[in-house]
Amino acid sequence: MNNFTYHNPVQIVFGKGTIGQLASLIPAGKKILMTYGGGSIKQNGVYDQVKQALAGRARLEFGGIEPNPRYETLMKAVKICRSEKVDFLLSVGGGSVLDGTKFIAAAAFFEGNDPWDILAKNAPINKALPIGCVLTLPATGSEMNMFSVVSRDSTQEKLAFANPQVFPQFSILDPETNFTLPERQTRNGVADAFAHVLEQYLTYPANAPLQDRQAEAILLTLTEEGPKVLKQPRDYAARANLAWSATLALNGLIACGVPQDWTTHMIGHELTALYGLDHAQTLVVVMPAVWKHQKQAKAQKLAQYAERVWGVTGGDQAGQAIARTEQFFQSLGMKTRLSEYGIGSERFEEMGERLARRGSKLGEHQAIGKKEVIEILRLCGPLGA
Amino acid sequence: MNNFTYHNPVQIVFGKGTIGQLASLIPAGKKILMTYGGGSIKQNGVYDQVKQALAGRARLEFGGIEPNPRYETLMKAVKICRSEKVDFLLSVGGGSVLDGTKFIAAAAFFEGNDPWDILAKNAPINKALPIGCVLTLPATGSEMNMFSVVSRDSTQEKLAFANPQVFPQFSILDPETNFTLPERQTRNGVADAFAHVLEQYLTYPANAPLQDRQAEAILLTLTEEGPKVLKQPRDYAARANLAWSATLALNGLIACGVPQDWTTHMIGHELTALYGLDHAQTLVVVMPAVWKHQKQAKAQKLAQYAERVWGVTGGDQAGQAIARTEQFFQSLGMKTRLSEYGIGSERFEEMGERLARRGSKLGEHQAIGKKEVIEILRLCGPLGA
Repeated sequence: MNNFTYHNPVQIVFGKGTIGQLASLIPAGKKILMTYGGGSIKQNGVYDQVKQALAGRARLEFGGIEPNPRYETLMKAVKICRSEKVDFLLSVGGGSVLDGTKFIAAAAFFEGNDPWDILAKNAPINKALPIGCVLTLPATGSEMNMFSVVSRDSTQEKLAFANPQVFPQFSILDPETNFTLPERQTRNGVADAFAHVLEQYLTYPANAPLQDRQAEAILLTLTEEGPKVLKQPRDYAARANLAWSATLALNGLIACGVPQDWTTHMIGHELTALYGLDHAQTLVVVMPAVWKHQKQAKAQKLAQYAERVWGVTGGDQAGQAIARTEQFFQSLGMKTRLSEYGIGSERFEEMGERLARRGSKLGEHQAIGKKEVIEILRLCGPLGA
Repeated sequence: MNNFTYHNPVQIVFGKGTIGQLASLIPAGKKILMTYGGGSIKQNGVYDQVKQALAGRARLEFGGIEPNPRYETLMKAVKICRSEKVDFLLSVGGGSVLDGTKFIAAAAFFEGNDPWDILAKNAPINKALPIGCVLTLPATGSEMNMFSVVSRDSTQEKLAFANPQVFPQFSILDPETNFTLPERQTRNGVADAFAHVLEQYLTYPANAPLQDRQAEAILLTLTEEGPKVLKQPRDYAARANLAWSATLALNGLIACGVPQDWTTHMIGHELTALYGLDHAQTLVVVMPAVWKHQKQAKAQKLAQYAERVWGVTGGDQAGQAIARTEQFFQSLGMKTRLSEYGIGSERFEEMGERLARRGSKLGEHQAIGKKEVIEILRLCGPLGA
């Protein structure tokens, strides 16, 4: 096991009817800016529940945060925070709304020229607005971590930042709010959480048996509960198990003391930035290709994963691990080839170049540079391949 | 899954050579009281490492905190905190030192007549001294929770309290500090952590597959790493895996949304209070007896545990689960019968009475009162049974 530091101060409030606790979770006297997305919370009753819980409290609203939240949109909220002296942000929605809210929180106090530097230049964050969250879509894990991913139209970039200042103070997870999610978002959520676990697990053995088993625990639960939820969207128990799995998939715990490989996410971000694919859609296409490319380097963990998650005990375990994972994604109703999205190899060179330009090589061995990124993209089944 | 709240703000600093980080973990300008136990830290080098890391900082010392920390001793430290205006407590040692330090932290600001009321009367804690921890013995999980257990000579009582004010701000876990632990403490630590998991797991199914698997992950890891550590006390990897398992066994995570049963601990505390047995020694004797008594009520989880942890797939799975657990404890070198400690049934009535007096019945079904406690104690193999 490697040395590590783990610190996660987020308070999770989990279960049926918990949105009513908002009034006691947000300190009295705060001027709240409630952030949300495209308005689904107005259809599913969450908006009304929040409004009711915060009746009588000073509350502004900022709607319209997109999936893959856009810098251009978020800067409008930053302006409101400054002009209206907002001192608490309440994110109501999925991971995109929360990621966007984390950026707003940090940008509101940013002292440099352009808050985009937080993402592009790793500019320091000394202070951020406090954040609370009502999560309506289990997927990204943003509700219990300090990560945020933001996109910028003008440069077609999708970049991440991490800072302890943007941990939510609390996150409310009421699985009933997930009942009315569109099937596509539910599916994406299962795939996203599944991929998060694998980015922290599928590397090389580091003599960390507890972390391995914790990761496998989440994977196994997702393989069971994901299909249940797609079949019965109002199955509370399955929704609850899925929600808790998605949170623990990326709250830092299974990453303690082990190597990680975020290659799939990094390449996926480029596909979203250039082609607008959903985040989870990119992961499902890229991850099997990364494994095919790195099959030797990842052989031992692929075999362990094949055995413990898929029950494959003999033969080409690594190959079976890749095949079973693709089949699982397909069983959720997801496409696993770029050709299915009509994407060819035209911009592979550009993507490899963009990733290489951002610094160190990818992968648990820092062995994936421009050349390897392009090779991996060719394994993603582009049009005409 | 039941509704739950989870909030654990402890920062864990884990690994080789991490004690040197103390200087940056304790805010500058603090007057530190370093608490410790019987002095083993002076033999194994930990005392010197702490002293060196805090060179030049205002630091007082309070040694002599016992295993099962005594109220009478701790109140001397409370006096020092008040008279010397201590504003940071640094616990250096195992779970007993830390439990004692948590009590000191809360008692220092206690406004009532007698801080024992924190334990005996659940008196409120509005403020506590901040706590840091250097953990030298993996066992209790106190390093990442808000629990504390304290004993009092004059009344022969051993009582617990829980309060978010006494979460350590940080806990340093350097597995190398465990290399020189006496075999008895290592053994007790494995058994203690194992029992902690089971108190949160071995109840009835609550449709919480992730929590179940997380619990099983810790149990399986303990069954593998415990024996390794006893055989090779300087096996760093095994020490590290054991340490992390013990922390996660009682940091609140596996308890999220599931029923719990702390009967074994409650009866065990009485055995420690009246007979002076080590905490872990009591758990090992009492837990199999609780399960024998509650075999019907716990049948489903006993069967799941038998299958997933011990690989028992048929026959009397519940009975096998109990037998295999006892064998595991015995394989660690522990006694599993009261008779082996020379204890008879003379004070069973008194123990049942003391527990019943403290309020609600024990167990996940609140079905264990005085009568049942005595029946369970009779199943613990007293002298002459």
